[in-house]
Amino acid sequence: MPSQAVVVYPLILVPVLSIVGLLFVAVLARSIARHPLDNEAILQITLTIHRGATTFLAREYAVLFPILAVVGVLLALGDGLVAGLSFVVGAGFSILAGYVGMQIATMANGRTTLAARRSLGAALNMAFSGGSVMGIVVSSLGVAGSFLSMFGTLSILHSPEKALVAATGYSMGASLVALFARVGGGIYTKAADVGADLVGKVEAGIPEDDPRNPASIADNVGDNVGDVAGMGADLYESYVGAILAADILGYWFARQHGIADALLAVRYVYYIVAAGLMFSLMAVLLVKLLSRSDRFSPESLLRYGSIGASVALVAASLPLSLGVFGDMKAGSAVTVGVVSGVLIGLASEYFTSSRPVAQIALASKSGAATNILSGMSAGMRSVVIPVAVISAALLAAYAGLGMYGIALAGVGMLGTLGISLSVDAYGPIADNAGGIAELTGQLPVVRERTDQLDSLGNTTAAMGKGFAVGSAALTSLALFSSFAQAMNLPVLNVLDPRVVAGMFLGSVLPFWFSALLIEAVGSTAMLMVAEVRRQFREIPGLLQGLAASDPNACIAISTRGALKYMVPPALVGIAAPFVTYFLLGKEAVGGLLLGATVTGTLLGLYMANAGGAWDNAKKLIERSLGGKGSLEHQASVVGDTVGDPLKDTAGPSLNILIKLISVVSLSFLPLFIK
Amino acid sequence: MPSQAVVVYPLILVPVLSIVGLLFVAVLARSIARHPLDNEAILQITLTIHRGATTFLAREYAVLFPILAVVGVLLALGDGLVAGLSFVVGAGFSILAGYVGMQIATMANGRTTLAARRSLGAALNMAFSGGSVMGIVVSSLGVAGSFLSMFGTLSILHSPEKALVAATGYSMGASLVALFARVGGGIYTKAADVGADLVGKVEAGIPEDDPRNPASIADNVGDNVGDVAGMGADLYESYVGAILAADILGYWFARQHGIADALLAVRYVYYIVAAGLMFSLMAVLLVKLLSRSDRFSPESLLRYGSIGASVALVAASLPLSLGVFGDMKAGSAVTVGVVSGVLIGLASEYFTSSRPVAQIALASKSGAATNILSGMSAGMRSVVIPVAVISAALLAAYAGLGMYGIALAGVGMLGTLGISLSVDAYGPIADNAGGIAELTGQLPVVRERTDQLDSLGNTTAAMGKGFAVGSAALTSLALFSSFAQAMNLPVLNVLDPRVVAGMFLGSVLPFWFSALLIEAVGSTAMLMVAEVRRQFREIPGLLQGLAASDPNACIAISTRGALKYMVPPALVGIAAPFVTYFLLGKEAVGGLLLGATVTGTLLGLYMANAGGAWDNAKKLIERSLGGKGSLEHQASVVGDTVGDPLKDTAGPSLNILIKLISVVSLSFLPLFIK
Repeated sequence: MPSQAVVVYPLILVPVLSIVGLLFVAVLARSIARHPLDNEAILQITLTIHRGATTFLAREYAVLFPILAVVGVLLALGDGLVAGLSFVVGAGFSILAGYVGMQIATMANGRTTLAARRSLGAALNMAFSGGSVMGIVVSSLGVAGSFLSMFGTLSILHSPEKALVAATGYSMGASLVALFARVGGGIYTKAADVGADLVGKVEAGIPEDDPRNPASIADNVGDNVGDVAGMGADLYESYVGAILAADILGYWFARQHGIADALLAVRYVYYIVAAGLMFSLMAVLLVKLLSRSDRFSPESLLRYGSIGASVALVAASLPLSLGVFGDMKAGSAVTVGVVSGVLIGLASEYFTSSRPVAQIALASKSGAATNILSGMSAGMRSVVIPVAVISAALLAAYAGLGMYGIALAGVGMLGTLGISLSVDAYGPIADNAGGIAELTGQLPVVRERTDQLDSLGNTTAAMGKGFAVGSAALTSLALFSSFAQAMNLPVLNVLDPRVVAGMFLGSVLPFWFSALLIEAVGSTAMLMVAEVRRQFREIPGLLQGLAASDPNACIAISTRGALKYMVPPALVGIAAPFVTYFLLGKEAVGGLLLGATVTGTLLGLYMANAGGAWDNAKKLIERSLGGKGSLEHQASVVGDTVGDPLKDTAGPSLNILIKLISVVSLSFLPLFIK
Repeated sequence: MPSQAVVVYPLILVPVLSIVGLLFVAVLARSIARHPLDNEAILQITLTIHRGATTFLAREYAVLFPILAVVGVLLALGDGLVAGLSFVVGAGFSILAGYVGMQIATMANGRTTLAARRSLGAALNMAFSGGSVMGIVVSSLGVAGSFLSMFGTLSILHSPEKALVAATGYSMGASLVALFARVGGGIYTKAADVGADLVGKVEAGIPEDDPRNPASIADNVGDNVGDVAGMGADLYESYVGAILAADILGYWFARQHGIADALLAVRYVYYIVAAGLMFSLMAVLLVKLLSRSDRFSPESLLRYGSIGASVALVAASLPLSLGVFGDMKAGSAVTVGVVSGVLIGLASEYFTSSRPVAQIALASKSGAATNILSGMSAGMRSVVIPVAVISAALLAAYAGLGMYGIALAGVGMLGTLGISLSVDAYGPIADNAGGIAELTGQLPVVRERTDQLDSLGNTTAAMGKGFAVGSAALTSLALFSSFAQAMNLPVLNVLDPRVVAGMFLGSVLPFWFSALLIEAVGSTAMLMVAEVRRQFREIPGLLQGLAASDPNACIAISTRGALKYMVPPALVGIAAPFVTYFLLGKEAVGGLLLGATVTGTLLGLYMANAGGAWDNAKKLIERSLGGKGSLEHQASVVGDTVGDPLKDTAGPSLNILIKLISVVSLSFLPLFIK
């Protein structure tokens, strides 16, 4: 291991690439806007959805701001003004990421419906453009913000250690906003979705997104605030968290190995994310170019776009490693991350599409109970391979470089976030386009095309979830080891009952947190059910399509539910490390972080995969088994509804929770031992 | 801490007390048999159930014996002949405990039905007599067997350390049999129960246990092989495991503290269990005496019988501690165990009876999906308090005596097993009595009385489950620390990625194991559904009550399903420590044990409480909300059916799994480092 970089690549390329990314996005957004929205019905619906989403986000931020202000001030008092400002930047960029994504999604949804009237390819192109704006914005902002929080603060503070504290504040800002965005958005969208389905599909027997259902609009607004804005903030947080963990551990790695250039290993992290951003941009361009020809199916385009960028990143990480460190160890750790992310994604894909889904569909023949049991069992089995992969990745990445290697693997998993999030975010846009088609009474072929895009989105999203879960586990472990170092805990012995007690308490958090979220969705959905039933009963002619429904009452219910229920679960996560520290000491907090990471990872995987499997079992029955309205279809709708809050509210929030607990501990608790 | 006992109590009292217990049981069994079964219809059904249960157990043992033989021979080769014999005794006593319990239960069930024709009190008395046989047999055999495996082998081997190895073999025998009994019995009973309900109650609209339903008999046989024989072996295993862990840690405690009498702390364990057995006997006698008068409700009798024995045990443990050690530390650890067991039980009782159940019932109004979500959320919330109690108990019990204190707390929790299991085991007998009443067409009042006994059993069982789960967690942690000692691991550092990787893999085991069990129940239940539908369709006049059903076909399906599916999950548990050891080393096995213990405890609590809450929500709706046949009742039947395999198959098996992994590791892995 040399004490200086063998080759010094200009670091300025990193911010330059993120600016290129943002410029690309601006061009793409303009090209979307240039497509005229020349259909009055679609225009009106789109505006309503856009207004609903904007209103909700504004109210969500209104609840969020005081909390951010308090935490920011405390952080500034404890860790210094720069850390406080860094926190504000992290929170602000996170909000921005979600907001821009939502703006673009509500711009692209109606235009995708219009494009679907022309052809499948045109619709794919429009939806993918919208998704790409999101993917590239999130990763460009992530690279720029992390660079700023590390090297920007370094230029002010002149101490890498202080800069790392400030960067931790930045990451905490991102995590805090992401948690609220995911939780609030998740409650909003699933309460509307579940409520709309329970009365509309099950009781009244009208299709999804039917204009007669007053909750249909709220459901479509929900897709934008939950699946788009929530997901944007979420992945921004994951990306930034992985980079931060690698920054901290890279710095300590250099120090411990006596490398004179203390920032050598930190710079490598930025070379990797910059390269990943570049390959993502190239992949997006390639997919857009090739989608004009008919030679490639949409599925293979999206898949090979993602895989191509991953392969390129691996190919680049190894020579970069050789250049920076003089050996391939760092590149190997990145490769471990990329490969294991793909493996976890493939496992998720298997459990949400192949044999397990067919088994659930078959079990639906004997009713809702066996459908639920079969989905639970599939979800529980689905954690085995991903966790085995995470364990193997942990050991492989650690072997060469210690905890720095584990953090690098986490960065590698999210390295090509630009393209993988583009593919992910295209899903809700296609979903929305389908909703708009139904709400405006388009020809069946239009809905068929958007359904085709949507179901493709479900499969590709599984891969994205694999990356998110895997990187959350690795990042969280890396932050856990940083915490131990910051608290002077060279050893955390599990034969010490304080550590074990902390682990038990940490393991409880994901259960408690999920319970609060599931209950929030359930309670809000029940109000929604009551309101939809009321409108069906009290508005004469509504079910016959002779009178209009009142969507605003439903929007109000989702909004109130989300705002009311989003704070307590977040407080559980924020308060846990403090309470544990003051009651049981720092060893117990160490156990807490580990327990929460392990159980949160498992429960998150379980919920995501069980939910996805139930959803696809329902679709399988609609497509090729009993069909809509059959007894097995009714059973499968129960499973799908149960899975909704698991896969879209509780599951993804767990990834954020485990990192938030870690960064909160890392930012605040070392103050008490000083 | 004195180096010798202050007061030496005669140890011979311990085996004497267990012989007194067995004699008491013999007398009680004779008194049950003396009640004539003078009703031809009841006699025939009882004989059919008895034959079904006996046949199944015989076939279960036939599968089990070769596995036991292989493990026993390996153990004899590795740890010596005495350890192998000790293993055989452990397995044999465990089989005996289940078998005797089942014999008595199938003797008391029909007699309880007959007694319910006279009065509620008479029925309670009969059912409780049956349950008491089980409770006292299990605890007497447990005390006698443990005493034999410790002091009996000591008299042969003349080395406490070798005797402890032999005692570990004994405990492993008990765990292995218990796992098969719980898993096999659990699959049998729940496949029959779910299958019978899905077609009978939901499709055909006939009541539970209706003679027209061909699966009714299999369902009642299942109660005996699963809830009685399975539970007997299960609690025998828990009791024995807790005693063994305290033996090992007591011995090392004395060694580490330079106490000249190395067995001082081991003897204290036996004084405690002997005292607990004595108080249990007294409590059983008291309940039986007082149940003849009408001044006490059955509920308060059972509750105060259990609580009285616990209070007496606490009151005895403190002076015993003073006598043996000269201080109150050991008694305090026992008290911590008793108190925390009660607290966990109360928490379980709350979540399976009070507000959470009412919320689930309310959620059923908007359908099966919200019923499921509400139950999931209640189950997830229900783990918070028990785990906080376990964490507190861990720290409190450790404070005075280190890991020995934790093991003593585990013993304390199960100290009054004799009475608490009597109360527990009375439940399935009452349930069976109700089934027989329905199958033989008794007057409604008979069924009402047995229902009343049954629902009381559900509530008191919650307390028993609290003891079982809490003691499993503490015992498993104590065994984990014994394992670390045996493997020369003074420190198990969670900053070591091997430990973390092991923890991840250990956490997966409860998920994987549960998935296999849920799937086994689901698949077998689907075959049952097909068979019941076939009989309804093909036997003319069956649904009109004009023709008899063919219960043997259903019994055969449950039997085949249980035997087919019980082996793979057990193998997962047995193989895991070996695979982990050879792939990743002893540190990873340490992580594996801890991960399995933490996640297994949480998942076990979740499943038990969610299942109990769904069950009672259904009963609440039947009693005081919509009533049978209403829409919310249909929704609640789905929840109850989903909960069945969770609370009666997977959940209780997890307690056994986490201990089996520990004893397997403790018995075999030290051989590889020698």
